[in-house]
Amino acid sequence: MIKSSLIGFSKGIEGDSVFTARNPATGENLEDSFCHASEEDVAKACNLASEASLAMAALSGSKKAGFLRDLSDRLGGIVDQLVQTMTAETGLPEPRVRGETGRTISQLKMFADLVESGNWVDARIDRTQPNREPIPKPDLRSMLRPVGPVVVFCASNFPLAFSVAGGDSASAWAAGCPVIVKAHHAHPGTALLVGNAVVDSVRSSGLPEGAFSLIFGDGRTVGQSLVNHPAIKAVGFTGSRAGGRALFDLASQRDEPIPVYAEMSSINPIFILPGLGEERMNEIATGLQGSATLGVGQFCTNPGIVFYPRGPGGESLVAGYVGKMKETVSSPMLHEGIRKAYGEGLDSLTGCEGVEVLVPASNESGEGGCHAGSCVLSTDSESFLGNERMVEEVFGPSTLLVSYENPSDLLRIADSLEGQLTASLFGEETELSQSGELLDILETKAGRLLFNQFPTGVEVCASVVHGGPYPATTDGRSTSVGTGAILRFARPVCYQGFPDELLPVELKDSNPMKISRSEA
Amino acid sequence: MIKSSLIGFSKGIEGDSVFTARNPATGENLEDSFCHASEEDVAKACNLASEASLAMAALSGSKKAGFLRDLSDRLGGIVDQLVQTMTAETGLPEPRVRGETGRTISQLKMFADLVESGNWVDARIDRTQPNREPIPKPDLRSMLRPVGPVVVFCASNFPLAFSVAGGDSASAWAAGCPVIVKAHHAHPGTALLVGNAVVDSVRSSGLPEGAFSLIFGDGRTVGQSLVNHPAIKAVGFTGSRAGGRALFDLASQRDEPIPVYAEMSSINPIFILPGLGEERMNEIATGLQGSATLGVGQFCTNPGIVFYPRGPGGESLVAGYVGKMKETVSSPMLHEGIRKAYGEGLDSLTGCEGVEVLVPASNESGEGGCHAGSCVLSTDSESFLGNERMVEEVFGPSTLLVSYENPSDLLRIADSLEGQLTASLFGEETELSQSGELLDILETKAGRLLFNQFPTGVEVCASVVHGGPYPATTDGRSTSVGTGAILRFARPVCYQGFPDELLPVELKDSNPMKISRSEA
Repeated sequence: MIKSSLIGFSKGIEGDSVFTARNPATGENLEDSFCHASEEDVAKACNLASEASLAMAALSGSKKAGFLRDLSDRLGGIVDQLVQTMTAETGLPEPRVRGETGRTISQLKMFADLVESGNWVDARIDRTQPNREPIPKPDLRSMLRPVGPVVVFCASNFPLAFSVAGGDSASAWAAGCPVIVKAHHAHPGTALLVGNAVVDSVRSSGLPEGAFSLIFGDGRTVGQSLVNHPAIKAVGFTGSRAGGRALFDLASQRDEPIPVYAEMSSINPIFILPGLGEERMNEIATGLQGSATLGVGQFCTNPGIVFYPRGPGGESLVAGYVGKMKETVSSPMLHEGIRKAYGEGLDSLTGCEGVEVLVPASNESGEGGCHAGSCVLSTDSESFLGNERMVEEVFGPSTLLVSYENPSDLLRIADSLEGQLTASLFGEETELSQSGELLDILETKAGRLLFNQFPTGVEVCASVVHGGPYPATTDGRSTSVGTGAILRFARPVCYQGFPDELLPVELKDSNPMKISRSEA
Repeated sequence: MIKSSLIGFSKGIEGDSVFTARNPATGENLEDSFCHASEEDVAKACNLASEASLAMAALSGSKKAGFLRDLSDRLGGIVDQLVQTMTAETGLPEPRVRGETGRTISQLKMFADLVESGNWVDARIDRTQPNREPIPKPDLRSMLRPVGPVVVFCASNFPLAFSVAGGDSASAWAAGCPVIVKAHHAHPGTALLVGNAVVDSVRSSGLPEGAFSLIFGDGRTVGQSLVNHPAIKAVGFTGSRAGGRALFDLASQRDEPIPVYAEMSSINPIFILPGLGEERMNEIATGLQGSATLGVGQFCTNPGIVFYPRGPGGESLVAGYVGKMKETVSSPMLHEGIRKAYGEGLDSLTGCEGVEVLVPASNESGEGGCHAGSCVLSTDSESFLGNERMVEEVFGPSTLLVSYENPSDLLRIADSLEGQLTASLFGEETELSQSGELLDILETKAGRLLFNQFPTGVEVCASVVHGGPYPATTDGRSTSVGTGAILRFARPVCYQGFPDELLPVELKDSNPMKISRSEA
């Protein structure tokens, strides 16, 4: 059966250009065919979104919350279908699908709570001072308002939590923006299941038709058309560095440049300070193995590189880690493209001077051609600092262990790093307090700093930062996880001299929503 | 005497390439020569800024406040020198120089108060929940931290308040960023006076040398080198659309793209609703004349276009306004480039079909070649909507009056507008409450909406928004005036699992600064 894009409440035009997804665990082509959106489909989706902009911007916080909660309920209702479709499309196990559905639901609810409370709008009030000398002070009030239609690209590695109704879409809707989602070619069936739920929620919550469209199509052509459409005011993306940069370049070259929030590339360095004994090192080896192989290493926060001290502690770490990684069974990655890039990344790393292979990744890619084994490589800090290729992300379950001699080496290493999503330190508390300079440097490199914890398992909450300087993201001033993600899709607007009845409810004198406001 | 750039605490290399400023009121070349910075000067300034980054980021709020207040005191101490130099370099009258010095001083103090209180950092705290099921919740805390070295381009039209120690610099220092200022060629002496005061403040406040450099040189060459230097992490600019866009393009094409906050182009439309009587129309004519000719029309918020209703009220407005604008005396603009652009802009407008000249601008540009007279043009909404050239900013004391027949015309007009700094409505309160759709559209077009007030005379406070969608700025998510301007130079950082003693003071359990924080 051929399935089409969802253009508002209609189906996209059924054309000749179709694609099917494959099961990466078995290599078999899945049953359903999906139709690439036509240029007319794309234009219609953008025009619907544009027409919906004012109505979306005018929605009250409770109306938006109602929509987000309705959608979260609907997702809960289709979890069994999601399990069936998503496991087939991604090779991910059922518990992961259920877990990711749960995360997607709680993200929607988190944004529902946020906009219902109204506290996110950074409300500011300067009351008039008619008697101020030499001139009266006018009444000025400001708050955040939606930017307009947002295009969201589904992430291959989060078919739910960063796809159709994932964090980017949820935060954009919460801000009051229409959303057009470009599905990922690897899991179109999952996208359509969720997409139909979104359409139902849009209808039943009384949102305008253009609040949502779902587009199937090639990232290069359809993706470009979406990003170039004048109606689009911002872009959310999670994926490769090349893909994110291409969208950023496109958006920057528009007549009206628009922001691109692309979360792209991070090796999530782990720094182990010298003072830990062998027992702690063994514990770290265990934790590291769990973090590095979680989801076959396909998390943005996967720790790809570990700096450890030479000496007995370090030797314990390496021995323990190698033992554990050897036991890791080969598993299917999400699709052939990712599997291929993993192999190429490992080839590049192993080809670097001074890099030794401690645990080779299996060459067997299995029936579906997507299986990947874990890999452990090692080198020393001198070799690392001498070769820029070693800082490139290898997306998958591999770890580069880098030994260092002196803690001062860590400063040079930290200085040499590009922008990261995370940087983790392991050590005694006393050591950490003596590592002020290292911390200061790492703070300029990463969005999230961790102490004695592994970076995977991102907590979805108000304080989390899932972002970081380029190339971790194209906009280091933002987070794509947590309530702060809503700020990406908002802009401040000031109302000067407005009568109270015409002010947005968040800025009215009586503060009916009882939100926190800064008042002068 | 030849004067050089200030590279940290040193003088720039004295080379052969020099320039002098001219008095735009008289055309005479001023005495001092200024030496274009060499590439070595630029590189040295950038390296000093880079070296100063961590020390600047580590400054406490009170230390930064001390510096900003010391600087404001020093500016107060050189106001007589500023009057002498700036009036000669800009042709602006003494009261304006004193007024702008006052504004610059109060901006510095505003940011001092802001960072001393510490409330700007958006502190967020999620405390650990060790017993949470199925997994414990880690402790996460986040706050805004400085982005690193910032390049600020002096604005030709604000030689103090948006130049060396103006709003961009003050907000970047307040965030904890080193600042490199590129002086404007029209007022280098003013820049140097302020620059020397900044160096004195940096020294006496114990800030690192790289906290400040002042660069003389050509915007195209030296400006490019600055924006392209890898040490630079953000750019502040106020000026022409072409100039701002060029910097934005450059910054977006870097290996590591950086944000450019360019405040560029706005015609600041005024919409007069149909219900006002002749008396109010006459008052508006008076206010409009004051706003449109303030500073010889050289304000970013200068109202360049007015939509008025046909009929007796509109006729009163036109007659009153024409009478007043005819009386306006020709005055020197800031420099020849601005005067030339004004003439060209008027030629373009008067060449548009359907545009009538009601008050011609004098062709006499006076002794210095920079004098400009006020100009009033008129057309109707049909002609306006039919010609895109009419929405282009003409920087100077000119106004295009556009008559409309039906209030519904205003919706089409508003829809057709590009991004603006401001949009103003004049009318009865009852009319405003019936203009919801117009307001909704204007909200998507402008950073600040005004009711029965003129857009010039920007209030510097917490609630103001001086920004707006492109091409008003290159980043519509920001304001360059008011306390919110600091947010441009900050990025969120999250600390996960950190011991209390190693957390930034803003995030410690005991909240020693007593700042407002959002806690889960």
